[in-house]
Amino acid sequence: MTNTESRTAAEHSHDATQRPTAGAKNDRYLRALRRQPVDCTPIWIMRQAGRYLPEYRATRARAGSFLGLAKNPELACEVTMQPLDRFELDAAILFSDILTVPDAMGLGLYFAEGEGPKFERPVRSAADIDRLGVPDMEGELRYVMDAVRLIRRTLDGRVPLIGFSGSPWTLACYMIEGGGSDNFARIKAMAYEQPDQLHRLLEVITRAVIAYLDAQRLAGAQALQVFDTWGGVLSPTLYREFSLRYLQQIAAALPRGKGDDQAPLVLFGKGNRPYLSELAASGAEAVGVDWTIDLDEARRRCGPGVALQGNLDPTVLYASPAAIEREAARVLEAFGPGDGHVFNLGHGISPDVDPAHVGVLVDAVHRLSRRPGNG
Amino acid sequence: MTNTESRTAAEHSHDATQRPTAGAKNDRYLRALRRQPVDCTPIWIMRQAGRYLPEYRATRARAGSFLGLAKNPELACEVTMQPLDRFELDAAILFSDILTVPDAMGLGLYFAEGEGPKFERPVRSAADIDRLGVPDMEGELRYVMDAVRLIRRTLDGRVPLIGFSGSPWTLACYMIEGGGSDNFARIKAMAYEQPDQLHRLLEVITRAVIAYLDAQRLAGAQALQVFDTWGGVLSPTLYREFSLRYLQQIAAALPRGKGDDQAPLVLFGKGNRPYLSELAASGAEAVGVDWTIDLDEARRRCGPGVALQGNLDPTVLYASPAAIEREAARVLEAFGPGDGHVFNLGHGISPDVDPAHVGVLVDAVHRLSRRPGNG
Repeated sequence: MTNTESRTAAEHSHDATQRPTAGAKNDRYLRALRRQPVDCTPIWIMRQAGRYLPEYRATRARAGSFLGLAKNPELACEVTMQPLDRFELDAAILFSDILTVPDAMGLGLYFAEGEGPKFERPVRSAADIDRLGVPDMEGELRYVMDAVRLIRRTLDGRVPLIGFSGSPWTLACYMIEGGGSDNFARIKAMAYEQPDQLHRLLEVITRAVIAYLDAQRLAGAQALQVFDTWGGVLSPTLYREFSLRYLQQIAAALPRGKGDDQAPLVLFGKGNRPYLSELAASGAEAVGVDWTIDLDEARRRCGPGVALQGNLDPTVLYASPAAIEREAARVLEAFGPGDGHVFNLGHGISPDVDPAHVGVLVDAVHRLSRRPGNG
Repeated sequence: MTNTESRTAAEHSHDATQRPTAGAKNDRYLRALRRQPVDCTPIWIMRQAGRYLPEYRATRARAGSFLGLAKNPELACEVTMQPLDRFELDAAILFSDILTVPDAMGLGLYFAEGEGPKFERPVRSAADIDRLGVPDMEGELRYVMDAVRLIRRTLDGRVPLIGFSGSPWTLACYMIEGGGSDNFARIKAMAYEQPDQLHRLLEVITRAVIAYLDAQRLAGAQALQVFDTWGGVLSPTLYREFSLRYLQQIAAALPRGKGDDQAPLVLFGKGNRPYLSELAASGAEAVGVDWTIDLDEARRRCGPGVALQGNLDPTVLYASPAAIEREAARVLEAFGPGDGHVFNLGHGISPDVDPAHVGVLVDAVHRLSRRPGNG
């Protein structure tokens, strides 16, 4: 199904001359992440290149499968660009999957029809962990870097490009459970029974995630987001030991580049509300939150040192244009005056949303947040 | 599938003489809810009468279906008693389903094989809401009251009996979505678009829930728990408007009885962490919390006026006896000294847990919390 077993000594073709120069024509998103003044609040939407768009479904049909799409740089670029051609979005995000790294580690990612992601060879023993290493970013994962390079060239500075990775904890969940899970019984039992083994696993994943995000930045990504989708299923003790610790390591160790080329790091986590002050103190430039907290409270907890991303309930997009505008206004108001807000949903957009409603949201956010003084 | 359409003017057989007198031989659970001293911390387990027990599976097989089991008072009594015969649990909980009330309202509850609960006639229009009324507690819902009476007689004071209901918001979720949901798109769209309609629905449900809990108390239930399973999927604004408000109404309006017969009210909610101080101020006697908060923090937020129930991560039961004891000790320690703690999981027990591990937990909680002074 995947050919990630072929760990050939791949061509290291770090071609610095291919790397586009900095600066985006629309730099609201990067300015907001740096907590600089903007003419209006930037917006992008998690999973903006996705199934709710008919043109995405058409490209995916041509690709034959989700992985066929994600592993083809030309098609990945095509779907990355699609939402930008419809809406005045302020950032593009690499079209890819959060499980590319474990796939490249040899676990064999596949998607059974109508089900979520699965691994052919989940991690089930200490020996399985021993076998894992940091994949070659210009080898097994070259298709990702090629996509980043191609998208960045194609964007030609129109908006910034976001690269991303799953968090170590979230990747470990899929790697140990072998797919999605209702209660994460296997990995939690491991956390209780064999914490040292789990730490060994999380350490190699963390090294891989750092290398992966760094390679995306070198290939052209201008901001980097970590998705900690499953941190919220943990008790506070386990969260701090098995999720937060590795997010902190990423925030501390990940190179961001220099000067105008600096790529801010955004830590998004579903259910991260209890840990916002710790995430804000990690050294990350921004924290993304879900919709179960008001942004004024999130801002209070995070303090002034980070930008915030979020946090409209994705289901608002099922409501009427008038309700969408009202709820967008509520989120903007909750954040309040001042800089450092990137508007987004609190989670990915659902596949059955009317694309026209996304346009309503994007326009409403820009219009309602317009600052007469700037730009 | 169900015969809840038959709304005959049912026999009102409130037979006060059938009602057992108060007082349980083991009253730790009720004492803890009243924040009185106990000899050791009481424990019961959400879904303790359930699929993880082979004897439950046998009774269910005899019943033919889950609803056949839930609607048969003798069999419901049988499975309610099963975990008490295995473990030194400090309370029994009525075996039933949270969706009995909407079923009795005429929605037609059924369980498709391998899927969750569904309604044949979900609420989809204002006219659907118009048709809803408070069911007859000794009519359509008499099987529940008969089960309560029979269980209470069978318990014969061994431990207290807990009655329960789903919360108005949680029942409304199933009634509008027609079953479980990934994102609650329909009911949330209604909250944004037609809040008045949703309030109309929640008002009739709330009246029904109050009548239902009151009838269970009159039939013999000695404590009453409301399960707000889905409140945590809401933004703070929506939670306060559509879930909390109706929990507060229940806490304010529900009769509790008098003297030794007083039945404390417990408000449990998955994801209720952000709202603990409001729940504690509702007038309920106790608040149940999931495992994503430490009990010392929950206690601080709730203040001294309520008891707390919780909150071991249910997946701890997949770990070894040594780990189960360690994690139980951690929960007891987090609650700290003082009265008012009912030990429980932070959510229902999973069907694939080893029953022996439940015994380990129950014994560990009693042993580790033994107060030499009391009892």
